[in-house]
Amino acid sequence: MKLTYHMSTKVIIGENCIRDNTDLFRDMGKRALIVTGASSAKISGALDDVIHSLKTAGKSYVIYDKVMSNPTVDCVYDGAAVARKEETGFIVAIGGGSPMDAAKAIALLARQITSRKKLFSGEFGADVLPMAHIPTTAGTGSEVTPYAILTNDEIKTKKSIASPALFPRYAFLDARYLNNLPNSIAVNTAVDALSHAVEGMLTVKANIMTDLTARESIRKISACFDALANDELDNQKREQLLYGSMLAGIVIANTGTTALHAMGYPLTYYKNIDHGRANGLLMAAYFDYMNKHNPQKISEILSLMNLDSIDSLCLLLDRLLAKKEAVTAEEIEIFAESAAKAKNIKNTPGSPGITELQQIFRQSFSL
Amino acid sequence: MKLTYHMSTKVIIGENCIRDNTDLFRDMGKRALIVTGASSAKISGALDDVIHSLKTAGKSYVIYDKVMSNPTVDCVYDGAAVARKEETGFIVAIGGGSPMDAAKAIALLARQITSRKKLFSGEFGADVLPMAHIPTTAGTGSEVTPYAILTNDEIKTKKSIASPALFPRYAFLDARYLNNLPNSIAVNTAVDALSHAVEGMLTVKANIMTDLTARESIRKISACFDALANDELDNQKREQLLYGSMLAGIVIANTGTTALHAMGYPLTYYKNIDHGRANGLLMAAYFDYMNKHNPQKISEILSLMNLDSIDSLCLLLDRLLAKKEAVTAEEIEIFAESAAKAKNIKNTPGSPGITELQQIFRQSFSL
Repeated sequence: MKLTYHMSTKVIIGENCIRDNTDLFRDMGKRALIVTGASSAKISGALDDVIHSLKTAGKSYVIYDKVMSNPTVDCVYDGAAVARKEETGFIVAIGGGSPMDAAKAIALLARQITSRKKLFSGEFGADVLPMAHIPTTAGTGSEVTPYAILTNDEIKTKKSIASPALFPRYAFLDARYLNNLPNSIAVNTAVDALSHAVEGMLTVKANIMTDLTARESIRKISACFDALANDELDNQKREQLLYGSMLAGIVIANTGTTALHAMGYPLTYYKNIDHGRANGLLMAAYFDYMNKHNPQKISEILSLMNLDSIDSLCLLLDRLLAKKEAVTAEEIEIFAESAAKAKNIKNTPGSPGITELQQIFRQSFSL
Repeated sequence: MKLTYHMSTKVIIGENCIRDNTDLFRDMGKRALIVTGASSAKISGALDDVIHSLKTAGKSYVIYDKVMSNPTVDCVYDGAAVARKEETGFIVAIGGGSPMDAAKAIALLARQITSRKKLFSGEFGADVLPMAHIPTTAGTGSEVTPYAILTNDEIKTKKSIASPALFPRYAFLDARYLNNLPNSIAVNTAVDALSHAVEGMLTVKANIMTDLTARESIRKISACFDALANDELDNQKREQLLYGSMLAGIVIANTGTTALHAMGYPLTYYKNIDHGRANGLLMAAYFDYMNKHNPQKISEILSLMNLDSIDSLCLLLDRLLAKKEAVTAEEIEIFAESAAKAKNIKNTPGSPGITELQQIFRQSFSL
């Protein structure tokens, strides 16, 4: 047996968990930078709860709400400049993966003036602003990972910054914040969470401890797919998805992802396809590829999902994701080339080359 | 759903994991205090590996090897004085629960001059020496808990100090360090680990996340009991026990223990019965008590252990622990009174009072 396991974030799950744990904000600093997107923090009710708790704990705050979907490197340098100018001592991130990931990079850049090159190389110290992360989607798992995924225009794709210093200090999971989520976003994020757990089981970095967590995650998430397909999520299912996506976050915190994520990134970068949806569009063909390299795990994953075959997975994903985007053969060449450069390719059994990656893309888009 | 989950230690498992991870010592400080008991660090080979890694990482060290079984408050103040005098910047703990627990209190007291009263109240800051913990038994799980259990003569029992600051930074688990363990110690520590996982499932603080880990722990540990009873542990089983006891540590890091531990402490304090053995002597009667309050969980635990009844558990424990110590009715009154004051009693379903505790003691010792 050989394994490494680390996840230092304190996870707090439950209705009203932010207001019930106001005390946790007391030792975080005097002034908070609330990092969020344009609207979900407000709509979800999370912003109100955070402001209430910060005020009760005697903290001041400033809101940075300029984080876009698939946040850019420019965005996090901008946020860090605000953090320094406003002398904020800690960060509260509210939102989906975009604000939570951006918040991590901002927490780092607020404390360390790091060049863009060093940012992606991981060559920086452990000194970052302490963070509390509050997901308003059930997908990214960013609240329990040491990763920040940013859009890097220099290499025309998304790329991750990774450091144990980027684990948030606290993750607050209140499923009520998912109540007003459009069903399409609930579907895309659930598929993202599923891909984390699945890739965490399939990567060469999987171990018995991450597999234990991944299995539970896959069971919990998959049990919600019927409700998602029928737009019939209830409170209990939303909670289950939020729990399952957090578990999947713990998995990838330790295993990282694989070719599926590497292939999803160019679909998002070039075609503006939502990240979770991009993974979902490619998942069945990715399963077909992985079935040649680890049939036992593929069979186990299908069984955890209560599916009898990859064809059944294909039908389920078609039902969830509806009509696929059109993609040309020329585009696929560009996507495969981009994906082949990603560092998580080498963690994929079989280490797929450009030919195999093109084949997965072509199969996914019926070309 | 309502739960809190936290375990910040980075766990590294595998043969040769200390020498293979020398780099991790580089950012821990210039000089180490190696905290250990009289012999196990040397016999196990762990001390050699630690010294090799420290030297390779360019660190100096001093050895504090005065930790006795069931370490006292005096011992940890003494160790902290050495740490301050020698200006050690970090701690490496090697051993069973005693050195690992003592090391945590030393790490705290080296940085904070805390009175004995404040020590047990938990009223201290987060500033402690960073720690790396190396278990040489598979039982305590201390390498992944925020607890230090000390013998407190003022209240004539063992008592815990708890703080998230006490999570070690690293836990190195190399099953080879268990190779020379006498079988009686392997048995006692395995029973201790089992009691952690079992109590973690039975406490009112159990949640779905800790249950997931506890189930796996119980399965792994129980699968080794035949080999333990026959003194036939092999490398694979030792590794399984070390992994299972670490998982059980993660469980109690989040749930704490229950009446079983509360009752075991006076047996250790007054009768000098090994900690794990003490829990084992009481376990079957404790199961009988818990069966009235949570029959479903008891039935699940027995099934995870591949046992059909509490009677079968009783037989298994008799086989593992052999002849029980003699205990008088007068002693039981003292033990029950002591146990009733422990704070983990209130986390035990049914909140057993002195009468119920006496009954469990009497049944355990056939009185």
